[in-house]
Amino acid sequence: MSPLRVAIVGFGKIARDQHVPAIAATDGVELVAVASRNASLPGVAHAATLDELLSDGPPIDAVALCTPPQVRHAQAATALAAGKHVMLEKPPGATVAEINPLVSAATTAQRTLFATWHSRFAPAVEPARQLLAGRKVTAIKITWKEDVRVWHPGQAWIFEPGGLGVFDPGINALSILTRILPQPLFVTSAELAFPANREAPIAARLALSDAQGLKITAEFDFRQTGPQSWDIDLDTDGGPVTLSMGGARLRAAGTQLVDAADAEYAGLYRRFRELAATGESDVDLAPLQLVADAFLLGRRRTVEPYEDEP
Amino acid sequence: MSPLRVAIVGFGKIARDQHVPAIAATDGVELVAVASRNASLPGVAHAATLDELLSDGPPIDAVALCTPPQVRHAQAATALAAGKHVMLEKPPGATVAEINPLVSAATTAQRTLFATWHSRFAPAVEPARQLLAGRKVTAIKITWKEDVRVWHPGQAWIFEPGGLGVFDPGINALSILTRILPQPLFVTSAELAFPANREAPIAARLALSDAQGLKITAEFDFRQTGPQSWDIDLDTDGGPVTLSMGGARLRAAGTQLVDAADAEYAGLYRRFRELAATGESDVDLAPLQLVADAFLLGRRRTVEPYEDEP
Repeated sequence: MSPLRVAIVGFGKIARDQHVPAIAATDGVELVAVASRNASLPGVAHAATLDELLSDGPPIDAVALCTPPQVRHAQAATALAAGKHVMLEKPPGATVAEINPLVSAATTAQRTLFATWHSRFAPAVEPARQLLAGRKVTAIKITWKEDVRVWHPGQAWIFEPGGLGVFDPGINALSILTRILPQPLFVTSAELAFPANREAPIAARLALSDAQGLKITAEFDFRQTGPQSWDIDLDTDGGPVTLSMGGARLRAAGTQLVDAADAEYAGLYRRFRELAATGESDVDLAPLQLVADAFLLGRRRTVEPYEDEP
Repeated sequence: MSPLRVAIVGFGKIARDQHVPAIAATDGVELVAVASRNASLPGVAHAATLDELLSDGPPIDAVALCTPPQVRHAQAATALAAGKHVMLEKPPGATVAEINPLVSAATTAQRTLFATWHSRFAPAVEPARQLLAGRKVTAIKITWKEDVRVWHPGQAWIFEPGGLGVFDPGINALSILTRILPQPLFVTSAELAFPANREAPIAARLALSDAQGLKITAEFDFRQTGPQSWDIDLDTDGGPVTLSMGGARLRAAGTQLVDAADAEYAGLYRRFRELAATGESDVDLAPLQLVADAFLLGRRRTVEPYEDEP
C-alpha cells in the first residue's frame, strides 16, 4: 500500500514537538508538506496557507490541522471538500456543534475525519480501561496542574475566546476519563478562575457524576510551579488505582503495572493511517462537551492578571 | 383512553401562568397534584417534594418539571425510575451532557422523556418552516429583547450559574431557528455581558452559521424597557420573511400570513399526551448546545450590576 501523504497545517509547538517526529516514526505515513504563514521545515514543501497548499502544493492525501481551535473548522471543511482526510488536533473545534457538519461532510466525501485525543494513546490508558472494566469505581479525583509558562510559551491563543485556557490541558484528563469509564458522565458544578486581563480560565475546579451518582472531582491549574501533576486517582472495590504522568504510569494496590515512555502521537498516526485506509471517521465529542458544559454551568471568579513574564 | 394524570413539580410563575391553564384546556390530560415547598393550588393534591409526591401522593402517570434547570436532572431521574413519563420545561437541564443518561433511562423504563421547547409551538412556526422549505435563506437577524423585571420577577435562579441569564428567553429564539431551518447550525462568535454582581449574562450578541456560510446574528438583551422585541428577520430569495411576537406572527413580502393567539403550552400538552401513549421520547438538544457553545466561545464583558429594583 502506498504511504499516506500528510501535510501539517499550522506549524507551532505541537507540530514541531510531536507531529513531525511521530510521522517520521510511523510506517505508512509520510510528511510531504507544511502550510504555515510563519514557519517551515527544511526539505519539506511549504505553502503559506491551506488554500495555497491545495492549489499549488505537492499531491497529498491528508492534512493534520495543528492550528488553534478557533480557525480549524473552516480549514477542515475546505480540506474535506478537496477530498483530503483530516486529522484534528485536540480540541476538535472552538464549539461542539461545529463538528457535526464536518462529520456529515466527511461521510459525503468518503474521507476520514479523525478528532484526536492524544492522551487516550498514552501507554497506561488501555490497561487502565481493562483493569477498571472488572471493578466498581467509587470515587475519582483528577489533579491536572502545570506551569503554563513552561508548557505553552507564546501560545497567546490559549487565553483567547475559544482557546480553553486551563482546559487545554484539562481536556486531556477528561479525554482519558471518558475513555477508561464506559458510562456517560456529566458536569454537576464548576468554578472557573479568569485572570482579569484574559478571556479564558487559568484554573478550574469541577464536580462530575454519572447516572449512579459517582463522585468525581477535577482540579485544573495553570499556575503550578515546581512539581507538575497529571494524575487520576480512583477508589475502587479492588483498592486504589492511580494513573499518573498523564497516562504514562498505572499503579494499583501498591504495584506499578505500567511505566512506559510516551508514544501518544505515534499511536495517533497509526490510527489515522488505519482510518484513512477505509475512509472511516473517529469523532468522540464527549471531552469537549464536558468543557462546554463547565463553561455553561460555571461560577466565574476573577483572579489576578496573567502576564507571560512573571 | 383514560386521561394522562399529571403532577406539576415546581410551582412558580411558569407553572401557574402556563401549565395549569394549558392542562385545563387539553383533552386527555388531567392535573392531579402539585409538588412544591412553597406553593399549592386549591382543590389539587399537594406534596412538598417529588419524593413525597411519589410515596404519599395520588396515583400519577407523569410529571411536568417546572423547577429551575439546576435541579431538574435529579428529579427527572427519580421520576423515570418510578415509572413516570417526564416533561422537562426548557432548558432541559443545566448542562447538555446530563440529558443523555435520562434518555437512556427513559428508553429502559419505556417511558416518555419530553424535552419541551414551548416557542416551537407558537402558531407561526410551522407555517414559517414550510414557507422556508421552498426558499434559499441568505441572512438572518434575531432580535430578542425583553425587560427582565417585567417577565422574570423573583426568579433569582435565572442569574445563578446554570440559570442562563438572558439566554433563558434567548434559547426560545434558538429553538425556533433550529426548527424552521433544516440544516445544523453552529456559533462562530459570542459576546456575553455579565453584570458585575451576577453569574449569568444580562445581554449577548452571537454570530452563527451553517456549513454553507449563512450569516446569522442574534442580539439578546434583558435590559429592554418600552417596546419589547421577539423577532426573527430572514432574507430569502423570495423576499423578506419576518417571524415576530415570539413566533405568533408571520409576514412575508409585505403580507401578514399568520397572526394568531398564543397556544404554545396547549400544544405542548397535546404532544406530551401523544408521546406518553406510546412511551416515545422527544429530545432535541440543539438549542441548548448552541447556548453551551456560546458560553464556551464567548468573549466576556463586565457591565453594571443588576438589581431587581431599578
